[in-house]
Amino acid sequence: MHRTRIRVAEDALDANQTIAAANREDFDRAGVAVVNLMSAPGAGKTALLERAIEAGLGETRIGVLEGDVQGSLDADRIAHLHVPVAQLNTDPGFGGECHLDANMVRAALAELPLAEIDLLAIENVGNLVCPAEFRVGEDARAMVCSVAEGEDKPLKYPLMFRSCELVCVNKIDLLPHIDADLDRLLANIEAVNPDATVLKMSARSGEGIEAWRDWLAALPRRVAATA
Amino acid sequence: MHRTRIRVAEDALDANQTIAAANREDFDRAGVAVVNLMSAPGAGKTALLERAIEAGLGETRIGVLEGDVQGSLDADRIAHLHVPVAQLNTDPGFGGECHLDANMVRAALAELPLAEIDLLAIENVGNLVCPAEFRVGEDARAMVCSVAEGEDKPLKYPLMFRSCELVCVNKIDLLPHIDADLDRLLANIEAVNPDATVLKMSARSGEGIEAWRDWLAALPRRVAATA
Repeated sequence: MHRTRIRVAEDALDANQTIAAANREDFDRAGVAVVNLMSAPGAGKTALLERAIEAGLGETRIGVLEGDVQGSLDADRIAHLHVPVAQLNTDPGFGGECHLDANMVRAALAELPLAEIDLLAIENVGNLVCPAEFRVGEDARAMVCSVAEGEDKPLKYPLMFRSCELVCVNKIDLLPHIDADLDRLLANIEAVNPDATVLKMSARSGEGIEAWRDWLAALPRRVAATA
Repeated sequence: MHRTRIRVAEDALDANQTIAAANREDFDRAGVAVVNLMSAPGAGKTALLERAIEAGLGETRIGVLEGDVQGSLDADRIAHLHVPVAQLNTDPGFGGECHLDANMVRAALAELPLAEIDLLAIENVGNLVCPAEFRVGEDARAMVCSVAEGEDKPLKYPLMFRSCELVCVNKIDLLPHIDADLDRLLANIEAVNPDATVLKMSARSGEGIEAWRDWLAALPRRVAATA
């Protein structure tokens, strides 16, 4: 059984790569830079998107694709900020897929006003494993890691941390109230991904939000410069 | 592609059910009650097992099977408490499986001294989606939900909350420092699983640990009574 499942997964990943490349071409043609935003459940992806949008992204017009197993709670939150948003639910497949894949994102493209945005933030399903395996056509990958999850997460979920160019270390306002050691968390991130940009922030206190906002706002220019 | 993947998943679930039943028979024969402990990454599964073991489980002799994508950090922590522990890593499959399945647990059975324990706690991979889909031969399912993850998690990951008979609401010591509303979290749990036992606790402060310890210690008697 195990061998069979692995072979099927590899086939699925092959197909996923093909569709991700097609998505990427469509995004490039529309001049839209895409960030795939990932994290464990409740690390603060939506809250950090809200804070960045509220802080203002300058000339950069953002749109958001929300991925969830069920419901539209996050899309409803983003819609209040008057930016284009679409909700993708993964629950038609297999009791709820634990990640977005390129084909799901492809199905959502028609719902997104690509001509009216410069940046698409795709908020993945909350999960530190499988989302890292499936490219969806993104230019950049960012993840949110809450200090409340403990300092050992980079060592337990190394592929996720390794596959992201930006790690947002969120909820730093909680540091005085938890046992997690920030320096050890940062050292663990460095150990698995020495090239990552690491930004410390708190969606609740607002600390560090400007650097995150600036990273998002600059992504379309960075992508255009490397095209 | 999507239709193919769903069919394969159903086949895998069929095979999983067969192997889970075989595991269950082996556990029953050995007189071992089994709890499948699940949560998002960093919710506190290991810390709550540590606190329960430290508090003492009375006559109940516990063993622990730790499931992680990589590494043995959690098994090392449990080993310090001088209870039998085995580590199962999922990374040989597909860049790291995001859940334990019955076949993985079956492969670990030989590593566990079933004759010397009454209760086996299987700590699943941190993930609120797929672990709920795969029975591993357990008698009971419990999950840990950290208040730091926010009050909306039962609505976003309903299958997980629905499939557990016990929900440990952990990190309640953080409530004064976060925006999450405990009453709304409890109402959301009730909405998706009105039959769940819900225990509030904090691995850090020790609040509520006795009720959790008592639930664990009583599981072998409850399982025997319904056999």
